[in-house]
Amino acid sequence: MLQSTTEEWEWKTQIGLYQKDNIIISGYSIEDLINNIDFGSAIYLVLKGELPNENQTKMINALLVSTIDHGISPSEAVSRYLAAAGSPVQASIAGGLLMFGDFHGGAMQAMAKELQEEMEKIGESGESIDKKAAQIVAEHRQQKIPLNGFGHPDHPQGDPRAPVLFKRARELGIAGDYTKLMLAIERELEKAVGRKIPVNIDGAFGAILSDLGFDWRVARGFIIISRSAGLLAHYYEEVTKERPWRRGPKFSYTGPGPRKLKS
Amino acid sequence: MLQSTTEEWEWKTQIGLYQKDNIIISGYSIEDLINNIDFGSAIYLVLKGELPNENQTKMINALLVSTIDHGISPSEAVSRYLAAAGSPVQASIAGGLLMFGDFHGGAMQAMAKELQEEMEKIGESGESIDKKAAQIVAEHRQQKIPLNGFGHPDHPQGDPRAPVLFKRARELGIAGDYTKLMLAIERELEKAVGRKIPVNIDGAFGAILSDLGFDWRVARGFIIISRSAGLLAHYYEEVTKERPWRRGPKFSYTGPGPRKLKS
Amino acid sequence: MLQSTTEEWEWKTQIGLYQKDNIIISGYSIEDLINNIDFGSAIYLVLKGELPNENQTKMINALLVSTIDHGISPSEAVSRYLAAAGSPVQASIAGGLLMFGDFHGGAMQAMAKELQEEMEKIGESGESIDKKAAQIVAEHRQQKIPLNGFGHPDHPQGDPRAPVLFKRARELGIAGDYTKLMLAIERELEKAVGRKIPVNIDGAFGAILSDLGFDWRVARGFIIISRSAGLLAHYYEEVTKERPWRRGPKFSYTGPGPRKLKS
Amino acid sequence: MLQSTTEEWEWKTQIGLYQKDNIIISGYSIEDLINNIDFGSAIYLVLKGELPNENQTKMINALLVSTIDHGISPSEAVSRYLAAAGSPVQASIAGGLLMFGDFHGGAMQAMAKELQEEMEKIGESGESIDKKAAQIVAEHRQQKIPLNGFGHPDHPQGDPRAPVLFKRARELGIAGDYTKLMLAIERELEKAVGRKIPVNIDGAFGAILSDLGFDWRVARGFIIISRSAGLLAHYYEEVTKERPWRRGPKFSYTGPGPRKLKS
Repeated sequence: MLQSTTEEWEWKTQIGLYQKDNIIISGYSIEDLINNIDFGSAIYLVLKGELPNENQTKMINALLVSTIDHGISPSEAVSRYLAAAGSPVQASIAGGLLMFGDFHGGAMQAMAKELQEEMEKIGESGESIDKKAAQIVAEHRQQKIPLNGFGHPDHPQGDPRAPVLFKRARELGIAGDYTKLMLAIERELEKAVGRKIPVNIDGAFGAILSDLGFDWRVARGFIIISRSAGLLAHYYEEVTKERPWRRGPKFSYTGPGPRKLKS
Repeated sequence: MLQSTTEEWEWKTQIGLYQKDNIIISGYSIEDLINNIDFGSAIYLVLKGELPNENQTKMINALLVSTIDHGISPSEAVSRYLAAAGSPVQASIAGGLLMFGDFHGGAMQAMAKELQEEMEKIGESGESIDKKAAQIVAEHRQQKIPLNGFGHPDHPQGDPRAPVLFKRARELGIAGDYTKLMLAIERELEKAVGRKIPVNIDGAFGAILSDLGFDWRVARGFIIISRSAGLLAHYYEEVTKERPWRRGPKFSYTGPGPRKLKS
Repeated sequence: MLQSTTEEWEWKTQIGLYQKDNIIISGYSIEDLINNIDFGSAIYLVLKGELPNENQTKMINALLVSTIDHGISPSEAVSRYLAAAGSPVQASIAGGLLMFGDFHGGAMQAMAKELQEEMEKIGESGESIDKKAAQIVAEHRQQKIPLNGFGHPDHPQGDPRAPVLFKRARELGIAGDYTKLMLAIERELEKAVGRKIPVNIDGAFGAILSDLGFDWRVARGFIIISRSAGLLAHYYEEVTKERPWRRGPKFSYTGPGPRKLKS
Repeated sequence: MLQSTTEEWEWKTQIGLYQKDNIIISGYSIEDLINNIDFGSAIYLVLKGELPNENQTKMINALLVSTIDHGISPSEAVSRYLAAAGSPVQASIAGGLLMFGDFHGGAMQAMAKELQEEMEKIGESGESIDKKAAQIVAEHRQQKIPLNGFGHPDHPQGDPRAPVLFKRARELGIAGDYTKLMLAIERELEKAVGRKIPVNIDGAFGAILSDLGFDWRVARGFIIISRSAGLLAHYYEEVTKERPWRRGPKFSYTGPGPRKLKS
């Protein structure tokens, strides 16, 4: 019997551990956590290794509530197609979550990255946030790279979730420099293009998650956690209310006309 | 240009709707929800179309906290392999969630289904819960079909989460007939096999989610929502703390020895 | 530093092995295989541990060609939604493949399973294939369990692929008892319901893969391999010919009317 | 009943069409294709809209054979974990395919992209391939950006598949300027670092697929199609030869020591 020549590769984690008689997460026993904290706090704990304060928990919950559903948008359509095909609930949800690509939740991540990188430069240079915002807008326009986090095709007058989240972030004392920078970019963008293109949900998440101290690499994850619940609801509705095997969309064929391999 | 012959198939939902200037979920505007409810309540709302009371919300949060992480178990290993390969966060999480198959979170769903079907029979027959439990155990043993929701290979003395969740369910006034039936089955199973095989997390979720009034078809979804957060943390840890391209496991090749196609 | 209490679980396989200087598959060196066999033969090899003969290879190729694309059906729609969202090619294809659930490619697997189980009974009882077919139809009708592998919503007069594949299977000498049984069921079904409901692609795959000696557990896999290529083409077309962020379908909201949390 | 405000978004494709009584792919009827071409040719057809010649078909088959399996590497481990958890075959394969991220099959795509972009510059400038290769190596070293397509952790003396594929490409008359450029880069890299780091499977696919005229955007797709078959074999082996619920890997917990929420 031959053995593979695989070198050992260690598995290690600071997040959690199961033992024969316990599960610990970041040093806390699972019993302690189940009895005392809510899910929003647990998310903060696994990502940061520390518990949030009360207002941070409220802000995380507000973010998760805001994106739980958006009617039958593409992620929901995907989950429902999969449910209708008889794929199980984990596949229906997983498939829908694959929708959070670079042009969807990915904008959230890109926005958070840009805010965090620019803020670091502000820290070093002592520049003002307003000046930095003007510079960001100018650079994007010069290099013709679209700014992430603005506009929404389904909400031409502005994504209704963004202002509510920013207001909540201010009430809870979470809104800080990242939110300031984001809103300054919105103002500078308006000056530059001559009309307001409001911050969307991606921009709001990017700014507020940065103000909560999260690395941009996890920003997209928050909409994924949130929407997993909405997709579960759409899975359930599809399998209980609709006939199986949902048809695909009506489409046009624009390829070559009839031809034959052998005449 | 040819058109496909697809028949129309209507898309409709009771869950939510986006409009140009608003998003509504089960009749509530998204602003109202962001400002007033937590994520646990929002999950209840998208699944049931109604808001939970305070104790139901607390119970949902307790369930979601309990399964957020379990160290590097298979779902976490899968997400970390995918992260190390340079697949994006949505793919890393989606892949890990595909682990909740019939022998994993699926037991939760199977248990909830069995409890709900048996309880319906109790309702019709007026039988006692204890008698029903004895009958369920006897039938499973007779037909050699394993009972879902008992034992855990990583926790030989019992899954530490289950008793904590049942205690919390009693404190919150959530524990009802389904929990009673589940624990009666545990007792009957002990009588039958001569040693205690404690209810595991699948059994606890199955019973408590049934007592919360959820259909068995969504039971598996709760661990999926919960674990999506833990998998995000493992994705983040893998991409920030480990080298890319994690090697696979060491393995043995047990196939045929060297042979040649052409001599 | 704490260690997990994980028991060792051995990884072993008869399929293949990498060594420092070679890769072997079922005993053959990868060089030998690359230089001498086609992909259809390699599929047979990894699944059965032996090489197919020439006609078996041709039949596998015919099956794989037959399902490579079906216009924009649900699996293609899913892959295109994912591509348009900026998820990478592996996620776009993986998501589309999740469509092969119990009501899609799953029927193929279910049909193969039923054929293989019934054929075993024929072997034991010496019954005729025609009698068995009549009995299968009668049982399904009695128990109101739909027969897998018949009819196709997009092809009301019959799935155009099935007769071509059966004809090819006869020409290649592959068609055997499973194909006979499948076509006998089709005749019996026609007698029973009074009109012909032709065997579809699932039925054809189920029968022919069984005649090729494949276990029903891998039947669904053949359409998955085949369609992975079609989905790649749709991914490519979507990212090169369409704008990003494809909108979801138009839908109706049937939930509760406007209501408020706090008056 | 409220309607969503979704704007129409047209679905169209040049790849294929189903009609009530036929399926056409790039103008050919499915019957014609099933009876006359192999799967490798069908892949070329859906991607390019034209049929390949005989040698192109052979080359595609050689590529697909070469990556069908690699023992229990990460993609296979993922598919086997999913299979052991009771997730169905489509989920097991889809999960394994998500492994083809930027550091896995993605290198193939990155290599193909770089070759195609550099070749376009050669076309414009009339530079020699050797000079371009030297320049590519110098630039990567200067900017400390690793070159894709070289070296393999499991095969320290060189990926055994690459030279076999290049030899086959020469025999079939497929090897052209892209292969020349790839091998010139290999030589220049050796000069620069003082030891040979051989082209790996990603580099070989990148070069040969470019010589076959494929856009770099589909390069990663070829290993996905190929490996989907290997993953099917691993799924099958896992569900028929192993116990369900495979344990995760042994791991170390490196997080904070025991602490309590409420003292």
